[in-house]
Amino acid sequence: MLKRKDILGLSDLKKEELELILDTAESLREVSDRDIKKVPTLRGKTIINLFFEASTRTRTSFEIAGKRMSADVINISASSSSTVKGETLIDTARNLQAMSPDVVVVRHASSGAPHMIAEAIDASVINAGDGCHEHPSQGLLDLLTIRQAKGSIEGCRVAIIGDIEHSRVVRSNIYGLKTMGADLVVAGLPTMMPAGIEKMGVDVAYSIDAAIKGADVIMMLRIQKERLSNPLFPTEREYSIAFGLNSKRLELAKKDVVIMHPGPINRGVEIAPEVADGSHSLILDQVKNGVAVRMALLYLLAGLKQGDN
Amino acid sequence: MLKRKDILGLSDLKKEELELILDTAESLREVSDRDIKKVPTLRGKTIINLFFEASTRTRTSFEIAGKRMSADVINISASSSSTVKGETLIDTARNLQAMSPDVVVVRHASSGAPHMIAEAIDASVINAGDGCHEHPSQGLLDLLTIRQAKGSIEGCRVAIIGDIEHSRVVRSNIYGLKTMGADLVVAGLPTMMPAGIEKMGVDVAYSIDAAIKGADVIMMLRIQKERLSNPLFPTEREYSIAFGLNSKRLELAKKDVVIMHPGPINRGVEIAPEVADGSHSLILDQVKNGVAVRMALLYLLAGLKQGDN
Amino acid sequence: MLKRKDILGLSDLKKEELELILDTAESLREVSDRDIKKVPTLRGKTIINLFFEASTRTRTSFEIAGKRMSADVINISASSSSTVKGETLIDTARNLQAMSPDVVVVRHASSGAPHMIAEAIDASVINAGDGCHEHPSQGLLDLLTIRQAKGSIEGCRVAIIGDIEHSRVVRSNIYGLKTMGADLVVAGLPTMMPAGIEKMGVDVAYSIDAAIKGADVIMMLRIQKERLSNPLFPTEREYSIAFGLNSKRLELAKKDVVIMHPGPINRGVEIAPEVADGSHSLILDQVKNGVAVRMALLYLLAGLKQGDN
Repeated sequence: MLKRKDILGLSDLKKEELELILDTAESLREVSDRDIKKVPTLRGKTIINLFFEASTRTRTSFEIAGKRMSADVINISASSSSTVKGETLIDTARNLQAMSPDVVVVRHASSGAPHMIAEAIDASVINAGDGCHEHPSQGLLDLLTIRQAKGSIEGCRVAIIGDIEHSRVVRSNIYGLKTMGADLVVAGLPTMMPAGIEKMGVDVAYSIDAAIKGADVIMMLRIQKERLSNPLFPTEREYSIAFGLNSKRLELAKKDVVIMHPGPINRGVEIAPEVADGSHSLILDQVKNGVAVRMALLYLLAGLKQGDN
Repeated sequence: MLKRKDILGLSDLKKEELELILDTAESLREVSDRDIKKVPTLRGKTIINLFFEASTRTRTSFEIAGKRMSADVINISASSSSTVKGETLIDTARNLQAMSPDVVVVRHASSGAPHMIAEAIDASVINAGDGCHEHPSQGLLDLLTIRQAKGSIEGCRVAIIGDIEHSRVVRSNIYGLKTMGADLVVAGLPTMMPAGIEKMGVDVAYSIDAAIKGADVIMMLRIQKERLSNPLFPTEREYSIAFGLNSKRLELAKKDVVIMHPGPINRGVEIAPEVADGSHSLILDQVKNGVAVRMALLYLLAGLKQGDN
Repeated sequence: MLKRKDILGLSDLKKEELELILDTAESLREVSDRDIKKVPTLRGKTIINLFFEASTRTRTSFEIAGKRMSADVINISASSSSTVKGETLIDTARNLQAMSPDVVVVRHASSGAPHMIAEAIDASVINAGDGCHEHPSQGLLDLLTIRQAKGSIEGCRVAIIGDIEHSRVVRSNIYGLKTMGADLVVAGLPTMMPAGIEKMGVDVAYSIDAAIKGADVIMMLRIQKERLSNPLFPTEREYSIAFGLNSKRLELAKKDVVIMHPGPINRGVEIAPEVADGSHSLILDQVKNGVAVRMALLYLLAGLKQGDN
């Protein structure tokens, strides 16, 4: 059993906790393959998706995860939220708490917003992405995907390529992968590399070729096109030449390398179509595992409460 | 049993009807405290939330109320509605009626819109706020909160402070509280006071101090910041000094006074943080009672139909 | 049983398939008249409403249809979709497929978008309107409405009046009605008439009076007011005089003529209020049949899979 109220990031999750979540996700994964994709586990539980930033795929994944476990799922999007009327974030959260939710899933543009909410309310909080900070359910689905493909995460050489500095996905992945014993290398333009990243225990390569040499796993990050208009950043085409993954570069990695990407992908920018759609790609497995991981999180936070505490 | 199709306002509800709703809400309140927050009462019933104005908290409260009673809840927001395509309100309503809903919950910027819809369709209509007119479910949750805190509403001295003229919450509260035998006083800037308000059977005070002296209940209204830009209105700071509730002023009320606010609150404008968060505040109880009252309304309008008429 | 994965249009549906869908809809129609409007048919099935264009009525109709059959229904609207982030339509679809939906209902401004999605994914796809191409569930509900009113579609004289060129509703109706043996005539301004429309097997009349003479069914189309600003189009008033249906014109049709309109109607433009609300009007029957037809489509595509293939 998970002895914590919230999942705010992977930075403080211990190896046993990560394994419990992955094992639970693994066992719930087959629910989505059934003809009747429904289990009664969370019947009578209320899950609120509180999204201050738009995110179709993450919201949809949590909504499907909740509904397949028979929970009541309520979507709230920021544009219609009373925060626009000047209410504080904490007051918004306390108001929702008064409606007795079991889990509040929070996406927010500001780092730390889910933590503030978690401290203010009794319901469990899951961080569904906060600023450039963490995105733990994405990190967990990446761990699950690697574990399935490689048998074990321990000792895997994982190369992460792209805008390291602005990615909450990277941060959650580094924490989770390090805890599970992976060997990490990151690469990206110097302007995309946070100062002191080595202190997180990762190697830094300044070319994609150096990073993917001998990699078991290559994780490509989405390039935010809006950042490419920045004078410090190259054009899409230049970026693609310098840091895009294509089938030629793939030959530098191990023969059984797997390719991952948190999506949505920019075909022809950070990843070539033949790689995204190729036999090494696990991009759609990641999405499928996303539902399983979110089912596991909801179950571990809300489903076990009744008999166990 | 409630012998009416719709709940459009508290102006025409008799005391026995109010009591039936409050008693029903009281008995349904504990559903939200259960581990499995679900009763089958409204299984197979269709509730449509038809919101022409954004309102996260009211919509969420009705949605949770419906789902906890196993109803199917459909959200429709105005921005995506075909009224933008030039369809009349009545045609929109008749179209929805053709899909056989049991209850249509209507929020609209124009006073009387829910009444027009109620006349046009067979389904029950609940007014979830129409212009500056009424907001009966808010009035009812306020009645329930006062009754819980004070044992009885009869004889309670209730002070309502703020923009009386533009508040549908006030109007519903005045009707409901008068019917239940409360003693009412309202206070606010002269520009916020509707002409002839005395005819509604309330006392008028032109200072907050005069109004809260001896009050059992103080109901603070949200100040619409956009109205403060009006030359007839003071700045936020001036408003706060003249009509804001702080702990010093609170000493004028009875020792066991309770503080209410329909939310969202403007901390430091109409209400000081130490009062909003203090031991006299029932603001979050109101929100919790909101779910119970809406469950009661949905149940009384849609749940009893089958066997009873 | 329907031996196809998708419903993309009525152009390729055979008479027996149309009849199967109509018969199924007919038998499911009474579910919405029950006191408990719920059957367990699609329990554990996941339906995604993927709407790239706003459409309250079609989305609501599919959502209600799915929920009344106990499916989990997920709404995705374009504005919040990651297609705005540069993802291709196919990638969006494949991502959804990885979450294991049973049916994806697609509305898109571009003709052929649902077909592209249908080819890319395993889930069933229902076209809920694509550009000026097809809107098969609307065509089917029109067939059902005519069949109910006239006993049989075969031999019925159906007049369709309005902007034939830009209407996906017309296209689906022409295919379906021809297959079922109806006799068709279309009328509209020359600028609204597609070149070569006669090749679809319909008569073309250039006045409304000529078209409705002897008609069993008159189907009025919504005039898009934005198109009336076009210099090729008349004003609303002129359009109404030339092509609007009023009670005087109605006398030219058969005594038992029925009037249909896909909605939302522009009262006083293409249809006079006394006609829209009169005894010949089946406009609200169409909406009701819409829920039944969508239940039938969802059932035939997703509900039968388990035992039958």
